[in-house]
Amino acid sequence: MRTIRTTLTPEEMPRRWYNILPDLPTPLPPPLNPATKEPISPSDLEAIFPKSLIAQEMSQDSYIDIPEEVLDAYMLVMRPSPLQRAVRLEEKLKTPAKIYYKREDLSPAGSHKTNTALAQAYYNKMEGVERLTTETGAGQWGSALSLACSYFDMKCRVFMVRASYDQKPYRREVMRLFGSEVFPSPSDQTDFGKSLLAKDKNHPGSLGIAISEALEACIKDDKAKYSLGSVLNHVMLHQTIIGQETMLQFQKLGEKPDYLVGCVGGGSNFAGFTFPFVGQKLKKKLETEFIAVEPTSVPTLTDGKYEYDFGDTAEMTPLLMMYTLGHAFVPSPIHAGGLRYHGAAPTVSALVNEGVVKPVSYQQQEVFEAAALFANQEGVIPAPETSHAIKAAIDLALEAKKNNEEKIIAFNFSGHGLLDLAGYQAYLDGTLT
Amino acid sequence: MRTIRTTLTPEEMPRRWYNILPDLPTPLPPPLNPATKEPISPSDLEAIFPKSLIAQEMSQDSYIDIPEEVLDAYMLVMRPSPLQRAVRLEEKLKTPAKIYYKREDLSPAGSHKTNTALAQAYYNKMEGVERLTTETGAGQWGSALSLACSYFDMKCRVFMVRASYDQKPYRREVMRLFGSEVFPSPSDQTDFGKSLLAKDKNHPGSLGIAISEALEACIKDDKAKYSLGSVLNHVMLHQTIIGQETMLQFQKLGEKPDYLVGCVGGGSNFAGFTFPFVGQKLKKKLETEFIAVEPTSVPTLTDGKYEYDFGDTAEMTPLLMMYTLGHAFVPSPIHAGGLRYHGAAPTVSALVNEGVVKPVSYQQQEVFEAAALFANQEGVIPAPETSHAIKAAIDLALEAKKNNEEKIIAFNFSGHGLLDLAGYQAYLDGTLT
Repeated sequence: MRTIRTTLTPEEMPRRWYNILPDLPTPLPPPLNPATKEPISPSDLEAIFPKSLIAQEMSQDSYIDIPEEVLDAYMLVMRPSPLQRAVRLEEKLKTPAKIYYKREDLSPAGSHKTNTALAQAYYNKMEGVERLTTETGAGQWGSALSLACSYFDMKCRVFMVRASYDQKPYRREVMRLFGSEVFPSPSDQTDFGKSLLAKDKNHPGSLGIAISEALEACIKDDKAKYSLGSVLNHVMLHQTIIGQETMLQFQKLGEKPDYLVGCVGGGSNFAGFTFPFVGQKLKKKLETEFIAVEPTSVPTLTDGKYEYDFGDTAEMTPLLMMYTLGHAFVPSPIHAGGLRYHGAAPTVSALVNEGVVKPVSYQQQEVFEAAALFANQEGVIPAPETSHAIKAAIDLALEAKKNNEEKIIAFNFSGHGLLDLAGYQAYLDGTLT
Repeated sequence: MRTIRTTLTPEEMPRRWYNILPDLPTPLPPPLNPATKEPISPSDLEAIFPKSLIAQEMSQDSYIDIPEEVLDAYMLVMRPSPLQRAVRLEEKLKTPAKIYYKREDLSPAGSHKTNTALAQAYYNKMEGVERLTTETGAGQWGSALSLACSYFDMKCRVFMVRASYDQKPYRREVMRLFGSEVFPSPSDQTDFGKSLLAKDKNHPGSLGIAISEALEACIKDDKAKYSLGSVLNHVMLHQTIIGQETMLQFQKLGEKPDYLVGCVGGGSNFAGFTFPFVGQKLKKKLETEFIAVEPTSVPTLTDGKYEYDFGDTAEMTPLLMMYTLGHAFVPSPIHAGGLRYHGAAPTVSALVNEGVVKPVSYQQQEVFEAAALFANQEGVIPAPETSHAIKAAIDLALEAKKNNEEKIIAFNFSGHGLLDLAGYQAYLDGTLT
């Protein structure tokens, strides 16, 4: 019997998050107040975030302890997660490479998003916050935050990109089951939403728009704070539980990965998976290459500009230094809803700009083909977002085959696709656009 | 940090299935040829089953080795599975009882069904079978067999109960992604299906009808055999991997369960979970009580007759001695599609008849309430079938609270509900019938 899974015991689960900020080659350009163009101060964010998360956002500490209650919650959502080897995929591709995937899909919410959702809900709860507002694209983030709010006995209001709300009807039932209110965005719940609906009552929405609505809903509600599923430093920080576990698992295997691959929407699963390794590489202790994968229809890293831009469409956020397609960009309604974002995390962007992370992009059709191949070899149906990483990993494995190299490739299996089956239906029917 | 999960290493995974037949209090009444009323002989089944499974069906060996290829496949579908403690549910109920649940939902197919699907596909493949036909209710079985056929490079034709085909549209996409053909049953693919559609073109179907269609499709196709997801001895046998792992896990915990609970449709998850323990109880080595849970609208064990009856509606199967509501029974279209079966496994039925297993039943509304409570405490959304076991486990925990007893309750978490969210939608909308 082949052992294809490397696990960690609860005792082995990392007890700290890793903060890449002090290890970056050059200091991260700070977020700017749009009016003054000066760096924002912590108090600028207190209307939307609790103080503890603002402190994490700006911290220069290399490690931050994970609170006991969050560790308990991590256990509930199946952490530590296994690192699985895709032996049957390797055999199918006839590649000498080894392909590993980090099982972030085993969380009950179906993705890595619970790693930060639980942390954020905890810190808000500790500061007396009663409700969180947020946006969600495909619904992975909204589901995770809904689960986390239920876990910590808080309320949640979710603005879901309308195109995804229609494409993935059952995501909202998950959120409702956990007690959340869910609105298709643009919605009639905010002035910004109403202004967009007035121009186009069938507006498909975008993450940028949904963020604007969630911020407006937060600012008008003094019992609420806002929660963001990606982009920001504290979100990347929380997600590093993934990469730190993976480091331990590769140590157990006695191997070092040649390639670490992840899909990028806002950057959180990619950052979580790779940053602990990136930190080692920046200290010249690793040779690993980092591949960030995005859709050709939302080519933020491969074709965007590296400049200051708003994180949302209504220009409510600070200006962030990041790769961007422009904050008014409305992506085509691809099924990988979680990747339909005009920007990318400042930290991930900085690393792309420095050449530490290499971005690549793929079309929707070839991504679904890779997903179908993976599902039939490994049994697990990937989320459309995750399938971008799979496509890149397969390409790397085929390149290794061509060069007859025993490369070690690992990708973050950021989520399963059981609630994205409308996309697979279109793929099987040949009607994917 | 609280450790809430008991796991097994791959090395600890049981290497044999447990066969309860030799340990039953009285020999199991055999299946009968309907024409002669004589016990069937192995050759009677060769049109529909491979020889190795027929041998398992009739075996009196207490243990049967699991083939290496099946062990490999088990590893792929996340075996051994964890035994998790529902600490937050216990706290919510304020019960002194401990509630454990066996995580059969972590299989990529979402349920315990892969334990027998993979075994059956393997044995068929070894005997040169190219295609399997089968029925499915809610789709858990069809998904699992589709995954297994893809794994072993075989074709699959699935007849899905029409009411479920309509209620759970995405289950068929899972099956299609794995390469299966899926037909809503009654269908126009078989004479029996056509005869039913002629009388009622909107016939909701039932598992009994779908079995008939799958059998007819098999008999007319000399490259095909039939695969049944429940009821038969060899299916119960394969599922005992669940209970045998659970026994090891309780040994690690140093505890003995007072109650083992499982929902019953055909009986496979219940049998798999309990039979290793039942065998011990029959040898007077355990005090555990066994609770089988069903819907009040399909009250096979609580209100059926214990007699010989056909396993399917068209009277194509042998006669099986089991609790039955009559093979023409068409259950109301409850969301727990996997429990909509007129009969129950002969082995499970015999144990109910002997008073070794105690059956209880619940209404759909109270079952969904239990499911919602469980989801909000434990984060995992249960399948509607599984929620019957959850309801019973909660009742036992409340009884333990009333009597201030530290009972140990364990139930089989047979599947998650991520593809049954239409049912949860109805529950949240207040439109459950």
